[in-house]
Amino acid sequence: MSIAGQQMKNNVMQQIASVRKETAVMASSTDEQRNGLLESIADGLVRDSKAIFEANLQDMANATDCAASVRDRLKFGQEKFNSVIRSLSDVAALSDPIGKVLLRTELDDNLLLEKISVPIGVIGMVFEARPDALVQIVSLCIKSGNCIVLKGGKEAALTNKALFDSIQRSCEGSFAGTGWILLLQSHEDVNQMLKADGLIDLMIPRGTYAFVKYVKDNTRIPVLGHADGLCTMYIDRSGFVGKAVACALDAKTNYPAACNSIENLLVHKDISSEFLPIMAKAYSENGVSIVGDKRVCKIIGCPEATDNDWDTEYLSLKISIRIVDSLDEAIAFIAAHTSHHTDAIIAEDEQAVRKFLTLVDSADVFANCSTRFADGYRFGLGAELGVSTSRIHARGPVGIEGLMTTKYLLSGQGQIVGTYMGPNAKGFKHIDLGTEGPSRILSDSDEDSEDAQP
Amino acid sequence: MSIAGQQMKNNVMQQIASVRKETAVMASSTDEQRNGLLESIADGLVRDSKAIFEANLQDMANATDCAASVRDRLKFGQEKFNSVIRSLSDVAALSDPIGKVLLRTELDDNLLLEKISVPIGVIGMVFEARPDALVQIVSLCIKSGNCIVLKGGKEAALTNKALFDSIQRSCEGSFAGTGWILLLQSHEDVNQMLKADGLIDLMIPRGTYAFVKYVKDNTRIPVLGHADGLCTMYIDRSGFVGKAVACALDAKTNYPAACNSIENLLVHKDISSEFLPIMAKAYSENGVSIVGDKRVCKIIGCPEATDNDWDTEYLSLKISIRIVDSLDEAIAFIAAHTSHHTDAIIAEDEQAVRKFLTLVDSADVFANCSTRFADGYRFGLGAELGVSTSRIHARGPVGIEGLMTTKYLLSGQGQIVGTYMGPNAKGFKHIDLGTEGPSRILSDSDEDSEDAQP
Repeated sequence: MSIAGQQMKNNVMQQIASVRKETAVMASSTDEQRNGLLESIADGLVRDSKAIFEANLQDMANATDCAASVRDRLKFGQEKFNSVIRSLSDVAALSDPIGKVLLRTELDDNLLLEKISVPIGVIGMVFEARPDALVQIVSLCIKSGNCIVLKGGKEAALTNKALFDSIQRSCEGSFAGTGWILLLQSHEDVNQMLKADGLIDLMIPRGTYAFVKYVKDNTRIPVLGHADGLCTMYIDRSGFVGKAVACALDAKTNYPAACNSIENLLVHKDISSEFLPIMAKAYSENGVSIVGDKRVCKIIGCPEATDNDWDTEYLSLKISIRIVDSLDEAIAFIAAHTSHHTDAIIAEDEQAVRKFLTLVDSADVFANCSTRFADGYRFGLGAELGVSTSRIHARGPVGIEGLMTTKYLLSGQGQIVGTYMGPNAKGFKHIDLGTEGPSRILSDSDEDSEDAQP
Repeated sequence: MSIAGQQMKNNVMQQIASVRKETAVMASSTDEQRNGLLESIADGLVRDSKAIFEANLQDMANATDCAASVRDRLKFGQEKFNSVIRSLSDVAALSDPIGKVLLRTELDDNLLLEKISVPIGVIGMVFEARPDALVQIVSLCIKSGNCIVLKGGKEAALTNKALFDSIQRSCEGSFAGTGWILLLQSHEDVNQMLKADGLIDLMIPRGTYAFVKYVKDNTRIPVLGHADGLCTMYIDRSGFVGKAVACALDAKTNYPAACNSIENLLVHKDISSEFLPIMAKAYSENGVSIVGDKRVCKIIGCPEATDNDWDTEYLSLKISIRIVDSLDEAIAFIAAHTSHHTDAIIAEDEQAVRKFLTLVDSADVFANCSTRFADGYRFGLGAELGVSTSRIHARGPVGIEGLMTTKYLLSGQGQIVGTYMGPNAKGFKHIDLGTEGPSRILSDSDEDSEDAQP
């Protein structure tokens, strides 16, 4: 590598390290300070909207060769702008995620333990060419008191820069200053981010499945995200055909490119001859092409599925249908093919429902509704950070709580462990005091602590 | 590699894969079944105690060259045996960690969302030559419905085998069978475990810091543990000298080899000439050797600390003492040197306490007590799985909740997402129903669900 290249690398790592230095400022800020900053950013964006729209027109002009779907996401007009401004107020309106008490135990007289929520520290976000995503993730990081290192899709470079410049201007006069946020620009910078373990605490990649997988495979930093969404719906022998057709149709056609759309449909043999012709007609009327196993082909005359089809995320108007002999076979099929995102059963038999919900090991397991409900907004989480198929830290749709960790506080009056050991050991009381209200250890009895700048 | 070597490798990976197949059996078991198994295991160990003690004597005989501390941990006599048997009842007495409701929201009429606790899946545990650790971790995995792959320290190989054989005999007749638990024996097996991402969900290494670091650096599987415990205590200008000396003495001498003992002591300049001579006398009487910065040396005449000393985890009766000019300097010093395990302040000034507790970014941050309280038993967590200095999944002392993840269940009556979109979209209700009681989605209204084997 050239000396200039090496220097640039060092420079990026130094920039990330300097963001890390701002974690204490963000973590110790008040909800009012953070909400005030969100408000200034909204005002600033409105003030700077002309420059932002112009930058976006330039990005669009440079992206004439891109796929229509990329251009759709890239386009940042008045409508998306208004929705971004609204989302800033929505995030400000969320309850303060910092300092929630998750456990409160009196270990002994005047020895109080509390476990409280605190920001994770530094979030690394790499996202596709969707300018609205930049504002959304910045607002969630502000609300949660986290620092952030951003890298957006190259097609949106000018729009991102315009948005970022506006945000920085709003930060300048605030409690936070501008050191807590960094926008990286080049593709090589992503690889530097991936190497920044110890400086970045959590990576959130958004984009193609190949890209998310690349991030997961190339960093020691924990990753919040999902590489694939191979979802299955199973129609039990006890399912009502009307409900089953409606749910399977919605789960495939409502938004075929979404990760919570189904790719595989399993049908119990006892209901197949009644269900399949109606389902096939509904799919055909909605432009869905079907492949099936031998028994399905016999009933509805569709092309036969290949072995690969059962593991393929079509993300389009195509579905693989298979007849199974039992609930157990359906559960075993799902275990073998699911990406652990969202799987569903349609059944009236309550025992079958319970068995399916218990034994299917996915982030979301649904009964008698569409898989498309798997979504932070529909779940009422307030804001969606992403969907996680990991079992660690967060699983399923993740709201702002995915940006939080915890910290134990213990407040005493000079107690030592020696007192609680040996032949004359004093016993602990371990009285559960419940988690109501703000931290008692951090609250100020005499004065309004929000007036005191830390 | 020889063909035989390659076959053995494949064999270990196949064995781990076959453990993974048992996750559904464990996850769907009832608390009664799991407690019954814990009871059988206790009975079985008592029945097999003679063989276990004999195996341990043989291990001890083979370990004559080992350090005294290794032999101490390896020795498994009647006293440790009794404590292991007691711990099995203690774990059985814990509340059922499976199926706790963490969120319950009515999205709309007859569309109920619940987030419930479920086992993570397969735990990989690599532990030092401490036979009691084997029984403890096995019992926590049973109680939490997790499968487990174990690898114990080689010095304890015969004792571990005897314990494992006894446990397997107790499993044979139970709901769980013997497939959910695997004991690996060779050092090479550890490297196979580290490569088993997708099969093992969480690694819990216990042992030397070098070993835990090796595990963290050589696997893509999430790791619960801590590689080091460089803890600091700060004596503020507002601290009472009596309390300060008692806490700093306990934090160093109660168990110097523990990760929650302090290695650095910071003293505010305004209190240093009063505090340091008394502290130095107390340390000297308890065999603690001191190194200090120039100002400390001037007051108590100790050797000067090297630059390295401030980052050294002595794990012995040695401490580095430094005078700071302000609370801010103390906080900055800790930020530069802490391993984010446990740090403490001794102060009467409530504002100083709050500032320290807010700005110090460690898993445990204490005021006016010894750092040695950082421990799952002392915290009243019921059972300690380990201490985590990670910010993701679990932080600080981790109880059985560290073996759990979550799953979203959604139960409807045929609802589709299309109803809630577009110009005539129905709104969501998002009514928070609270988290009291067992899952309503999984409960059986008509019959006793525990009678029905899934």
